[in-house]
Amino acid sequence: MHLSALGHEVGVSDNFARRGYDVEMGVESLIPIASLEDRVAAWAEVGGREIRCFVGDLCDAGFVHQMVGDFRPETIVHFGEQRAAPYSMIDQAHAVYTQTNNVVGNLNVMYAIADLDRDIHLVKLGTLGEYGTPNIDIEEGWLEVEHNGRRDRMLYPKKPGSFYHLSKVHDSHNIEFGCRIWGLRATDLNQGVVYGVDTEQTRSDPRLATRFDYDGVFGTVLNRMTIQAVLGHPLTVYGKGTQTRGMINLVDTVECIRLASEFPAERGEFRVFNQITESMSVRQIAETVAAEFPGECVIEEVENPRVEQENHYYNAKHTALVDLGLKPTLLSTALIDHLFEVVERHKDRVDLAAIMPTVKWRETHSELPRTGAELASAK
Amino acid sequence: MHLSALGHEVGVSDNFARRGYDVEMGVESLIPIASLEDRVAAWAEVGGREIRCFVGDLCDAGFVHQMVGDFRPETIVHFGEQRAAPYSMIDQAHAVYTQTNNVVGNLNVMYAIADLDRDIHLVKLGTLGEYGTPNIDIEEGWLEVEHNGRRDRMLYPKKPGSFYHLSKVHDSHNIEFGCRIWGLRATDLNQGVVYGVDTEQTRSDPRLATRFDYDGVFGTVLNRMTIQAVLGHPLTVYGKGTQTRGMINLVDTVECIRLASEFPAERGEFRVFNQITESMSVRQIAETVAAEFPGECVIEEVENPRVEQENHYYNAKHTALVDLGLKPTLLSTALIDHLFEVVERHKDRVDLAAIMPTVKWRETHSELPRTGAELASAK
Repeated sequence: MHLSALGHEVGVSDNFARRGYDVEMGVESLIPIASLEDRVAAWAEVGGREIRCFVGDLCDAGFVHQMVGDFRPETIVHFGEQRAAPYSMIDQAHAVYTQTNNVVGNLNVMYAIADLDRDIHLVKLGTLGEYGTPNIDIEEGWLEVEHNGRRDRMLYPKKPGSFYHLSKVHDSHNIEFGCRIWGLRATDLNQGVVYGVDTEQTRSDPRLATRFDYDGVFGTVLNRMTIQAVLGHPLTVYGKGTQTRGMINLVDTVECIRLASEFPAERGEFRVFNQITESMSVRQIAETVAAEFPGECVIEEVENPRVEQENHYYNAKHTALVDLGLKPTLLSTALIDHLFEVVERHKDRVDLAAIMPTVKWRETHSELPRTGAELASAK
Repeated sequence: MHLSALGHEVGVSDNFARRGYDVEMGVESLIPIASLEDRVAAWAEVGGREIRCFVGDLCDAGFVHQMVGDFRPETIVHFGEQRAAPYSMIDQAHAVYTQTNNVVGNLNVMYAIADLDRDIHLVKLGTLGEYGTPNIDIEEGWLEVEHNGRRDRMLYPKKPGSFYHLSKVHDSHNIEFGCRIWGLRATDLNQGVVYGVDTEQTRSDPRLATRFDYDGVFGTVLNRMTIQAVLGHPLTVYGKGTQTRGMINLVDTVECIRLASEFPAERGEFRVFNQITESMSVRQIAETVAAEFPGECVIEEVENPRVEQENHYYNAKHTALVDLGLKPTLLSTALIDHLFEVVERHKDRVDLAAIMPTVKWRETHSELPRTGAELASAK
């Protein structure tokens, strides 16, 4: 909608997998989401612009080829992947699904571009979590290495923290290869944790609202904490909460997509942007929420279900998007107050049982792989 | 057979995919290969030891789980992947097949170990081609990086040259993560180009002979050149032939597997060995073959179907296996003479049309993905 409002001709592809995960997990977005059909109709009404829909699965190569050949885009903004680390760590089946879905879908997009028009710019959603928490500065995708008196510019070494994060590392390697052999132009957006709940466009009509996930599998930290605050529950941090993460406001993410699209990579260029505007520890986020909340609010440490470093160096560079013109919108008390209002409005929809983490990184199951339904009923 | 002859209890798993690729491509090993059943029976007769067979697909998680639970190995030597770069570059379907088959099969092996017994040592076949041809020394899997005054030990940055090589990079990342979160013990064998045709065990009975591939998709350079020499054809090098590759003799590869297995990685350790004993350029190999061949023998440059650097720095370290006790068997004139004899014996079986490369890295197909059968008939 952000791109459409600016006059770009936009098409959207969806296989409704994200809605399916909610059904599987027995959870729902805090804010009700209209159907794709209704949202596109609402945007035509409110925004006055048509968005073409392509319903299908990126893992279906024929579908992707046909869609790209039909729509003939200048840019493909590829956000169509399973995006939750805990979902990928549920069990063997979910790990395999995540990596297959993400890697194959992305390969199919790459092949469609290579087949049909190698000038199409691929803007691909990666994640800052691909880097993990190295003991050196995190650069934007590439690292100048000096070793035994010789030098090379190499892909930044990755240490991802889940099978989901690994799927994005696999994608990045595949895309860099596509740039080398086919001369593809690609921008890999290594995005941090997104917070915030609306943009100018989603605010223009209730049917245009986007998701607000707070459950232990798909929810993100700021959403969960605002719900905990409003409902009078302790704000939970995993472990000591000293893990630091790069973050970005939803309004900036859509602006980054615009900037990446309007200033494309060169032919053969694999360009990586670290799509964050600030870094905070989980505890700092909790303290910010607690300080802003008008009522009582305590912070509680819970056992960390993940395997991650809690005390670590963290300095993720993020100048490339600013150089293109991004004007960062930092986390503000006004935004947190707005989140409190949103939660207050929808608090009857909160399923408290869904908030706590159920997926533990160190555990696997000694029986044969479980289905999502079995997992949901075992919670 | 090498491990069995030394007294280890060995089981083997096969889904016969490699035999299937021959059928698909319309080619055959120069040396006829007996069925798995016949080979195992021959080994029981000649070697006096039983090898248990598990027929199934590593992409079937239930099969892998059951096999590992049933056999309860101390070590899993995982060589069960699609192993040809050109095969992975045929088209979209073969790229997706290669990455799915290799990544999912390996994930299933990792999950079976994590579920059943985390002390099982995973010895995994990678490839030296994962590294590409960086302008710095190639270390064994890990690199000490100093950057902006800080240091870390990081996975060596990879620049693989095909979707096949990429599948191994994906595997390596997944395994390193398994070592971190589940405490797996793993050895990644980054093997160079294998040459040679037999071992002490394969020589002991014609039914125990192993493959000799020379076709443009699965064949390796030394095999192809010995066939070209014996049949009086020019030895073909891709481009200038100045590309340098790490190599290893077949008798050393089985010895490396023994060493990796008998001296396992620690719990939680992701250990990488560069499994080569020498490095040569393609042109040097051709010159060695031409010098040794008793008759006339010319070298011819053909268009390079791959996208690769032809002039590059190359220094791949390979001391870890020697430190464990490997005594390298280098390429010798005696071995080349033996290859000439083998080819002479089977030369009526050579399909000359199969030798030249048909798969071009830069090309994709503007129609929808082709089947292997269509590709074979288009040759």
